[in-house]
Amino acid sequence: MTSIKLAVIPGDGIGQEVVPEALKVLDAATPLIGGGVTFEKTSYDLGAERYLATGEVLPDSVLDEIRTQDAILLGAVGGKPGDPNLPPGILERGLLLKLRFELDHYVNLRPSKLFPGAASPLANPGDIDFVVVREGTEGPYTGNGGSIRVGTPAEVATEVSLNTAFGVERVVRDAFARAQKRRKKLTLVHKTNVIVNAGKIWTRLVDQVGAEYPDVAVDYQHVDAMMIHLVVNPSQFDVIVTDNLFGDIVTDLAAAVTGGIGLAASGNVNPDRTTPSMFEPVHGSAPDIAGQQKADPTAAIGSVALMLDHLGYADAAAAVDAAIVKDLESRQGAPARRTSEVGDAIAALVAG
Amino acid sequence: MTSIKLAVIPGDGIGQEVVPEALKVLDAATPLIGGGVTFEKTSYDLGAERYLATGEVLPDSVLDEIRTQDAILLGAVGGKPGDPNLPPGILERGLLLKLRFELDHYVNLRPSKLFPGAASPLANPGDIDFVVVREGTEGPYTGNGGSIRVGTPAEVATEVSLNTAFGVERVVRDAFARAQKRRKKLTLVHKTNVIVNAGKIWTRLVDQVGAEYPDVAVDYQHVDAMMIHLVVNPSQFDVIVTDNLFGDIVTDLAAAVTGGIGLAASGNVNPDRTTPSMFEPVHGSAPDIAGQQKADPTAAIGSVALMLDHLGYADAAAAVDAAIVKDLESRQGAPARRTSEVGDAIAALVAG
Ligand SMILES: CC(C)[C@H](C(=O)O)[C@@H](O)C(=O)O
Ligand SMILES: CC(C)[C@H](C(=O)O)[C@@H](O)C(=O)O
Repeated sequence: MTSIKLAVIPGDGIGQEVVPEALKVLDAATPLIGGGVTFEKTSYDLGAERYLATGEVLPDSVLDEIRTQDAILLGAVGGKPGDPNLPPGILERGLLLKLRFELDHYVNLRPSKLFPGAASPLANPGDIDFVVVREGTEGPYTGNGGSIRVGTPAEVATEVSLNTAFGVERVVRDAFARAQKRRKKLTLVHKTNVIVNAGKIWTRLVDQVGAEYPDVAVDYQHVDAMMIHLVVNPSQFDVIVTDNLFGDIVTDLAAAVTGGIGLAASGNVNPDRTTPSMFEPVHGSAPDIAGQQKADPTAAIGSVALMLDHLGYADAAAAVDAAIVKDLESRQGAPARRTSEVGDAIAALVAG
Repeated sequence: MTSIKLAVIPGDGIGQEVVPEALKVLDAATPLIGGGVTFEKTSYDLGAERYLATGEVLPDSVLDEIRTQDAILLGAVGGKPGDPNLPPGILERGLLLKLRFELDHYVNLRPSKLFPGAASPLANPGDIDFVVVREGTEGPYTGNGGSIRVGTPAEVATEVSLNTAFGVERVVRDAFARAQKRRKKLTLVHKTNVIVNAGKIWTRLVDQVGAEYPDVAVDYQHVDAMMIHLVVNPSQFDVIVTDNLFGDIVTDLAAAVTGGIGLAASGNVNPDRTTPSMFEPVHGSAPDIAGQQKADPTAAIGSVALMLDHLGYADAAAAVDAAIVKDLESRQGAPARRTSEVGDAIAALVAG
């Protein structure tokens, strides 16, 4: 009997609709693990509503509780754009990024695969199957910056991208290890011709760690040129390693070309397993369609598969992935389903 | 008799092949201006070859000469990737960005239009016709940053994004003026939920300047979400205003979805006309296909149209644009042509 402690944070908007479906599928997959493994779920009410009601984003006591869990499933975070009571970024930085930073989720793992049934907006997508290893704890995401003379014509605002050998090396190492288990190709994405100091530390560490992986072929793309490659020839990529901001941008494009943000799953992983890793769909809270059962829960369900895999339950993870593929195949030409109907269908496929 | 002094910088790689074609078309278009206008061209041999031979990137004396010109036509800058004799970014920063900064090209203008004959890689591109107004003189492009303990496990590298009310307001103002002459819609692209200080100054100035343009509808997109919008529904955009780095990324994606980087023209404009503005294709020097007459000169030719328009010769600019459209229409199903053949064809269409 193993009981796995799972923190569940539905968050805002469609997060509250897709997370129940992800849990439905988790429940269907749990018996496949065997050995009496169960999930003990604790739901945490965090996000825009709580902030607007109480002023609390992520109380220390809640963070301390979450630290004791084995894994986290998160829906989405973010209030209505332009809400005057929600300072920009307060939830994203105070909750989502705070969890990633406090729990040292230095590998932000984002697989991109064009499943047979999924409709790419590209005319000729080809086979797409790569994974982006996005750094999760530094770069331009550290909140290091400030403003002077705010609101005046002499205002200056700065933002500092912080890059450390410690931080870059560990994520590069993770990316090489993944490439070696896959098609043995690693692409560094950066903007070394302009963002020179940060570019140099990334280049140096890819070269250095790469020397330990002589069987992995390494190449490099500027982030701007990457836009073109992902649209014109996305099948060339295997493992992509990049910084926090470039990874944010590249993975949304990757999601777009592989059938949409409704399918893109992600893991915020601490490979050292000293903290709970966190799994979440790449999409946001989508306030415009929230509460209407229109959201596609597939990305959240795919995040459950990533979580099962991370926890060591590869077979249960594969069963969830296979159910997603089957469900996608059944979508062609079929009328749109409600969020819960998609969850029901995938759960039924997992249960077999 | 007006003689316009044009500095010509072919640069590296395919820059040397596309610039002659652009000049061919300029020569064909000049008679359409009337009034005895002529172009007095001075060629500047700058780029990788000169640097490798002499160690010079952009000597002060050359910069001073260029300052006295009326406009600049540039091909592309950048040597072979990984050339050990070319420190990363030395040409880009020492030549291209140096010109943009020294000549205060604060409006980096990048129109995106899906021409009838152009093949978008998107299955359903729809009508696309927007212009990106990219800030050209600040943001993460200022080379403000540094590294300590280089090459050691304790290395730290920083990059600072600098954003000033002075710099943001003037480019936002330019963008609103353009939107008012077009479909009256302006989209700010940023990452305000993470890059908070810079995000605030951009948001504030878009709000502030926008109050003077009540007939222009304003909206906002995060740069990551923008990746999806540009792939799924690019026809929704009219004028996009954004910072230097986000603009770099967004315009490459915009080029990709409107038929490729071979068609994307750009202007580095100083709207105050106190310095020569510079026109260049968005593409790079493409060392992999250089010297083979494989490059498409259309983007360089489109940059000539932008230059003519900037100089006040709207009719000649329109003639070049119309010739490009006609040539694109003739491409469907036809075999690939050499760089010079495309130039010949467009020049002939301009000459009528
Ligand atoms: C919501 C936001 C802070 C977040 C990010 O920028 O990382 C999101 O875009 C993502 O990719 O997970
Ligand atoms: C070559 C490089 C410095 C340049 C930039 O980043 O601005 C290019 O990508 C562009 O978009 O003009």
